[in-house]
Amino acid sequence: MSKTIMQRLQKGEDLVAELTRVCRENNITRGAVQVIGAMEQARLGYYHQDARTYETHAIDQHVEILAGIGNVSLLDGEAFVHLHLTLGDSTCRCMGGHAMEGNIIFAAEAIITEIPGDTLSRTFDEPTGLKLWA
Amino acid sequence: MSKTIMQRLQKGEDLVAELTRVCRENNITRGAVQVIGAMEQARLGYYHQDARTYETHAIDQHVEILAGIGNVSLLDGEAFVHLHLTLGDSTCRCMGGHAMEGNIIFAAEAIITEIPGDTLSRTFDEPTGLKLWA
Amino acid sequence: MSKTIMQRLQKGEDLVAELTRVCRENNITRGAVQVIGAMEQARLGYYHQDARTYETHAIDQHVEILAGIGNVSLLDGEAFVHLHLTLGDSTCRCMGGHAMEGNIIFAAEAIITEIPGDTLSRTFDEPTGLKLWA
Repeated sequence: MSKTIMQRLQKGEDLVAELTRVCRENNITRGAVQVIGAMEQARLGYYHQDARTYETHAIDQHVEILAGIGNVSLLDGEAFVHLHLTLGDSTCRCMGGHAMEGNIIFAAEAIITEIPGDTLSRTFDEPTGLKLWA
Repeated sequence: MSKTIMQRLQKGEDLVAELTRVCRENNITRGAVQVIGAMEQARLGYYHQDARTYETHAIDQHVEILAGIGNVSLLDGEAFVHLHLTLGDSTCRCMGGHAMEGNIIFAAEAIITEIPGDTLSRTFDEPTGLKLWA
Repeated sequence: MSKTIMQRLQKGEDLVAELTRVCRENNITRGAVQVIGAMEQARLGYYHQDARTYETHAIDQHVEILAGIGNVSLLDGEAFVHLHLTLGDSTCRCMGGHAMEGNIIFAAEAIITEIPGDTLSRTFDEPTGLKLWA
């Protein structure tokens, strides 16, 4: 039987690190992630498809997590969370990107759904420069 | 066996009230929610983390529901829907926030997934001023 | 037993066409869809509720797919994917709308969850001018 976890994440902690911890503690290596809540600050990445580099944007304000959408698979043999964020500021304006390190939780409610199936691992993909599912 | 409901919501009704009604009629007290569609008007909230108050923004225009993401748990013993909205206007510009009362449905398609497990209730959380999962 | 598919989508292909292909190859006619990733270009629709016409916006830049949220049901007897997109540009600015034809994948990771139940078909709805669930 596959697991689905509804989990409040800890204030002051890093969002992706917390999600990764929950997956590892529950032995979830394949799954879906959704998160809503708010953050004390955000760090959003944009991948330059031609230059093949991530640019990180610092959002040093309190924001709502409108949608944290992502998945869980293996990277180098360990559970890895790939999460994209849409955020809203005090005027309801939106900003978003790939969730980098440094997203600090104010309050967050995550749902992590284990998905049964074969081992799913990320490996380097030459056409994109990213680590993708084989 | 847990239920998953695919439900068209009624034009002219309040979005959160409709989702709550569907949960209560189906005895869903723990779950995940996703919604897409369009609204006749929107009411979005932003939580001021320091002042501990919600500010409501009135969006008096027709908008697409790009992503309605949320969860179901208990508040005061009854099914409660916590929903965040990302919306798009006629220029594809985005706005978003916590779904307040007053989001009027034009057309909406919801998927509500019951999640088995222990009773999950919201209680007041002193560090944030919000009603969160214990 | 219902299926959940975690699927990398092919670079250079149309996003909605790829999702539709995966559903049809796996005989999924009722379900939920989430996608994250990036696109080489985007085509977003906005439905004018009064005029009852879709306006298409061309986004001729590389964008992140912050949230692709949608569902699968039947239209004219075949699996049909209804998908809404929230996108982010290199400055983390967001734009979004209904996924039209012409969203070209750079890298995309989809999760398609089959939802058991009665046949769910779209038919013309006079009050909105859309093809909705009966």
